[in-house]
Amino acid sequence: MPNLNSSSAYELRQAIRSGKFSGHTSGAGAFVQGNLVILPKAWADDFLLYCQRNPKPCPLLAVGDPGRPVIESLGRDVDVRTDLPGYRVWRDGVLVDEVAEVASLWRADLVSFVIGCSFSFEQALMDAGIELRHVSQKRNVAMYRSSLATTPAGRFSGPTVVSMRPLRAADAIRAVQITSRYVENHGAPVHIGDPGLIGIQDLQRPHYGDAVEVRSDELPVFWACGVTPQAALAHAKPEFCITHRPGAMLVTDRLNHQMASF
Amino acid sequence: MPNLNSSSAYELRQAIRSGKFSGHTSGAGAFVQGNLVILPKAWADDFLLYCQRNPKPCPLLAVGDPGRPVIESLGRDVDVRTDLPGYRVWRDGVLVDEVAEVASLWRADLVSFVIGCSFSFEQALMDAGIELRHVSQKRNVAMYRSSLATTPAGRFSGPTVVSMRPLRAADAIRAVQITSRYVENHGAPVHIGDPGLIGIQDLQRPHYGDAVEVRSDELPVFWACGVTPQAALAHAKPEFCITHRPGAMLVTDRLNHQMASF
Repeated sequence: MPNLNSSSAYELRQAIRSGKFSGHTSGAGAFVQGNLVILPKAWADDFLLYCQRNPKPCPLLAVGDPGRPVIESLGRDVDVRTDLPGYRVWRDGVLVDEVAEVASLWRADLVSFVIGCSFSFEQALMDAGIELRHVSQKRNVAMYRSSLATTPAGRFSGPTVVSMRPLRAADAIRAVQITSRYVENHGAPVHIGDPGLIGIQDLQRPHYGDAVEVRSDELPVFWACGVTPQAALAHAKPEFCITHRPGAMLVTDRLNHQMASF
Repeated sequence: MPNLNSSSAYELRQAIRSGKFSGHTSGAGAFVQGNLVILPKAWADDFLLYCQRNPKPCPLLAVGDPGRPVIESLGRDVDVRTDLPGYRVWRDGVLVDEVAEVASLWRADLVSFVIGCSFSFEQALMDAGIELRHVSQKRNVAMYRSSLATTPAGRFSGPTVVSMRPLRAADAIRAVQITSRYVENHGAPVHIGDPGLIGIQDLQRPHYGDAVEVRSDELPVFWACGVTPQAALAHAKPEFCITHRPGAMLVTDRLNHQMASF
């Protein structure tokens, strides 16, 4: 198993491709990671428009050409069929398989979408000395289907899924500043404070991920989340779709520090 | 009376100097305005250090030379003795007079401090379509002595005085982004949410200014405030001090838009 801190992203992808690494990619801190969605061309145009109209939950890092699984703009020899530690296969909106690679499922009409992920800004927050509870407690971040509707496009629509991190006020203010710089990785929060105002009834019952405590001197801070397109896909039910296995992202050659504006 | 929107800052200062205008300067929206503190040299060094150590409440726009009332860096022919609509005179920490000019009180040892003011960022917030309740309701902003202590310097110390503006969460997030650009005008908020966490027991009883309603879908957002040095002066009790009359600021030639970083 490669050391995620000292390996290059290329070495890590090669280890994944050869089956030597199949774990979570959350430790590959310096590199930009992406959510993966692969759709047939007949669904891809609607999905592209959906992402364009909803850049905070669905910031596009790259879109592949139909039938072409290699995306050079994201790094050396990146092949979305083999370079992620795990994949989910969906048919008609139903999860039918979880596999280690999707080369055998590849088709000439498939289009790959790589969507920015909060790992980039989380690294920046931690670099700034801000404690992230779910990281400290080795849990997945808590995510919720909010009442903030996405802008529909063709067959795609649905709620904005938000991730929540509890922060003291001074850290919440600093987190707005820091994450505002990461426009391609969900950017600034979409909500701070009362969860009920965005349709979340119980913070202790997230729709995805794990609950974490919000202490009395903390505010819940909510960001648009890359799980939003999964909710839209579940609703649209395309005949065929491949996504990454949760936590098993595409690790690109780009550095998080390169993503920050100003 | 000059039209504050169409006059130049120079014309406005000339109108003030000649006694044609003695009102509030809050309408001079495009121009950077400053709080004024004038102290004898024997107190000025401590005060300079106090401002240096507390840049969020006391951002220095300019410091004059001893005995010299003209500050060229802030605009054409700026004379702090005559160019503000009103002054307060303090002896041993006690307010003893309110006057229209202080030329007759000028001394060879007086040092002028011009400190950035929230009018600059308030204009930017309103330009971004964010409603400020105290502006809509034509009140003074609500200000509170918080439990956030300033860093002492010599004889100066005291609480950080904070101003509060109620905002919906999305506007609060946008306000963090916007005001972060105004480093010389108090910058980003110092607190969001529960007032008790910064020692404020009752929002409806501000220590300075006027109370405004905080609605159930709003967060109170707190910024460091230029009244902080007044609290430090009241505690230090210098033998002689001149300040601006509240709301009667120095209108400089600098434009608010010029103050914004990135």
